[in-house]
Amino acid sequence: MTEDAVTVRLARFLADSRAGDLPQAVRHEARRALLNYLGCALGGCREEPIGRALAALSPYAGAPQATLIGRSERLDALHAALFNAMSANVLDFDDTHLATVIHPSAPVAAALLALAEVRPASGEQLLHAFILGVEAECRVGNAVSPGHYERGWHISGTCGVFGAAAAAGKLLGLDAQRMAWALGLAATQAAGLVEMLGSMAKSFHLGAAARNGLAAALLAGNNFSASERAIEGPRGFAHVLGDKPNLPAITGGLGETWELARDAYKPYPCGVVVHPVIDGCLEVRRHYSPEATGRVIIKVNPLAAERADRKAPRDGQEAKLSLQHGAAVALVHGRAGVAQFADACVAEPAVAALRNRIEIEQDAAVARDEAFVTLRMKDSMIHVSHVQHALGSVGRPMSDADLEAKFRDLAALGAPGVDAARLIDAVWSLDAAAEASTLARLAVPRAGPAAPRFATMSPKESRRRKKGA
Amino acid sequence: MTEDAVTVRLARFLADSRAGDLPQAVRHEARRALLNYLGCALGGCREEPIGRALAALSPYAGAPQATLIGRSERLDALHAALFNAMSANVLDFDDTHLATVIHPSAPVAAALLALAEVRPASGEQLLHAFILGVEAECRVGNAVSPGHYERGWHISGTCGVFGAAAAAGKLLGLDAQRMAWALGLAATQAAGLVEMLGSMAKSFHLGAAARNGLAAALLAGNNFSASERAIEGPRGFAHVLGDKPNLPAITGGLGETWELARDAYKPYPCGVVVHPVIDGCLEVRRHYSPEATGRVIIKVNPLAAERADRKAPRDGQEAKLSLQHGAAVALVHGRAGVAQFADACVAEPAVAALRNRIEIEQDAAVARDEAFVTLRMKDSMIHVSHVQHALGSVGRPMSDADLEAKFRDLAALGAPGVDAARLIDAVWSLDAAAEASTLARLAVPRAGPAAPRFATMSPKESRRRKKGA
Repeated sequence: MTEDAVTVRLARFLADSRAGDLPQAVRHEARRALLNYLGCALGGCREEPIGRALAALSPYAGAPQATLIGRSERLDALHAALFNAMSANVLDFDDTHLATVIHPSAPVAAALLALAEVRPASGEQLLHAFILGVEAECRVGNAVSPGHYERGWHISGTCGVFGAAAAAGKLLGLDAQRMAWALGLAATQAAGLVEMLGSMAKSFHLGAAARNGLAAALLAGNNFSASERAIEGPRGFAHVLGDKPNLPAITGGLGETWELARDAYKPYPCGVVVHPVIDGCLEVRRHYSPEATGRVIIKVNPLAAERADRKAPRDGQEAKLSLQHGAAVALVHGRAGVAQFADACVAEPAVAALRNRIEIEQDAAVARDEAFVTLRMKDSMIHVSHVQHALGSVGRPMSDADLEAKFRDLAALGAPGVDAARLIDAVWSLDAAAEASTLARLAVPRAGPAAPRFATMSPKESRRRKKGA
Repeated sequence: MTEDAVTVRLARFLADSRAGDLPQAVRHEARRALLNYLGCALGGCREEPIGRALAALSPYAGAPQATLIGRSERLDALHAALFNAMSANVLDFDDTHLATVIHPSAPVAAALLALAEVRPASGEQLLHAFILGVEAECRVGNAVSPGHYERGWHISGTCGVFGAAAAAGKLLGLDAQRMAWALGLAATQAAGLVEMLGSMAKSFHLGAAARNGLAAALLAGNNFSASERAIEGPRGFAHVLGDKPNLPAITGGLGETWELARDAYKPYPCGVVVHPVIDGCLEVRRHYSPEATGRVIIKVNPLAAERADRKAPRDGQEAKLSLQHGAAVALVHGRAGVAQFADACVAEPAVAALRNRIEIEQDAAVARDEAFVTLRMKDSMIHVSHVQHALGSVGRPMSDADLEAKFRDLAALGAPGVDAARLIDAVWSLDAAAEASTLARLAVPRAGPAAPRFATMSPKESRRRKKGA
């Protein structure tokens, strides 16, 4: 019984849902997720993959309907959705639905923000659609986890397209029939291989999910049909892309439990196993000096050691999975932001020297979000920081203030021309906004020397230019 | 060894291939495939799914760079690729690579024709790229068949994207490195579920394959990177979308055997199991009359009976898998074209009456492309047609003249304003054409009363209007 008509039942829930049904805590989590999303998109909007994709695809884009977050160009809504989801994922700094490892916000928010620029919607409507989109994609993800990711599906792409379709369908006001088609058109576009991680194609998965999900909703809204058993049918998404799917996970407790409650935000743009180590190093840092410190010992869970015991990362990408690098930058720089995981910082002599001196110990009694950082000083003093729960874990979520600080850092990095304070206010007061497009309008650089259209500047050039402005 | 570096080796073959390497027979088959493709696209270009998708997506399309085959609208090249592949598949009349059941031409040709309108290319270059695109997609399909389709992947979509990427990459002149990225970006966009068959989403799979493959080549050409083990890696296409893939099938005999040689064309727009029955009925038709004919007996392979013993199809879609309907229209109308598989013909009293009188016998000694059609006349005469190989099967391919006749019928049906004779000539002489875009230029209606831009006329309205012109 519970496996019957999963697609239609999910569609009916999405179509029937009213904003008044949403708990206040879920609404607040949605605002936090949107703030984190916008920060990540601002921070990533000038990265190399974005520039290259823009140069390749912009000659084929349509009317300048929608904002590219953090940039001065405008593209048609489908392409804007593509780029605004890529930007938010490119730094590996966006949110994570812990149960599935989906990065849920980027495809959903990017599709909605683009659509809201061509179809008027209120802030309340956008927030509602965002919550439903995240709900749909994470529930589909729950049904196929963990086999789906293990098989090699990049779940943020394959499930993200459901989120974008559901959210865009809600903003378009699709009825249950058309919503089912939108989910079907999402299911049949689900794609993205784990093999791509480490290449530019990785972020493209989230971009394609946003664009394709938005297109699915637009097509369905125009009576373009799809199978109404797209998820549960014998040749549908769950059986074809999942081994032994758990279909009741999609419809069980709909409207009662909310997947956004299981969404987490990263304080540092690196692998989560490195996070408690960074927390500990930032805490003991006041006792650290290259001259006075003898040994630096880090005790972590065996999984962290297996994944990230890496003394000599060759570049920023590898440094994101290096316990030694995370510890070194926290001790030397006193921070672990995007700049600390750039190639230049990896090559810095002081950082490299310290990485070599850090000793890793593993202990199965240490939890995955736990770490001990010990400085043994030459004068025989010992300073220990015991991090019970890493910042950003379920046990110690980032506060609203933490998220604001992260947002400001990212905005300053990738889009210093944007008025970060006004955009933060706009997110917190989104429910009351008459026009959801306010967010996109505030997410572009204030007037200044115009950037060349479709420029492909390196991030460094871009930052230099912005500083000069 | 042979499983190593499959992606890179296929990419190198594609990048290094020279037009002079192509056997004449393969070139001729490519012209035949293109003629069949263009006919199918002309015949399908006014079908309902095309109109609905156009209404949904055209507000987001870019500059009018490229032709929509058979129509007066022009869209950006990516959207043109999407629509020109959908049009060619929507009637279920396009070609079939028999070993994999891939419909190979539509995604490849649609991507190339659109690209050739924005990047100058000769007819020879287009023909060459087309052959390579079909080669790439069918070889990838061979490697994952039959498990891939059986699992529920609509193989024309999942492999078509490789074909479009390889072909577009060749026309762009990508080197082996960038060609490997193009294949990787294709692999990571591979999508399309068998569950969608019977809905409008089915043809969309081929459209998305064309558009996404073209985008893959454009991105790779702009140094947008992907995994170089996209096909063979442990989390790559072959292992994730295939069970027990046969990777050597991709690189074995490259440049020696050609998959186009295994491509087949349908004389009738219905399931292939119905084809030999139609052949037989057309042959005995001169002896048929409702008054003089007693029993009509059809003997087929058990598979045909299992799939298509269907006395009372409810609509054109079901009629495509009805032996009785195929036989009845061949006997009553003397033809089995698109009009004979439209809803109106299914409801015709004379056709319905005859369907009820047809007896199906099955015999395992009858081959799948074989049939016996027997008319037992009331005067005790018996007329039997024994079809050893259905027209369009490997044993009896459609002749060039057959393909021309099919093309003319389809053009008259869907795009009567197009100069069919000139377009046929242009396909046969494509190798000598200075500009490949000639094909697209000739595939639009000659000047007449302009159709409204992005019209969503029904096919019937459209035909009526064209006839009035």
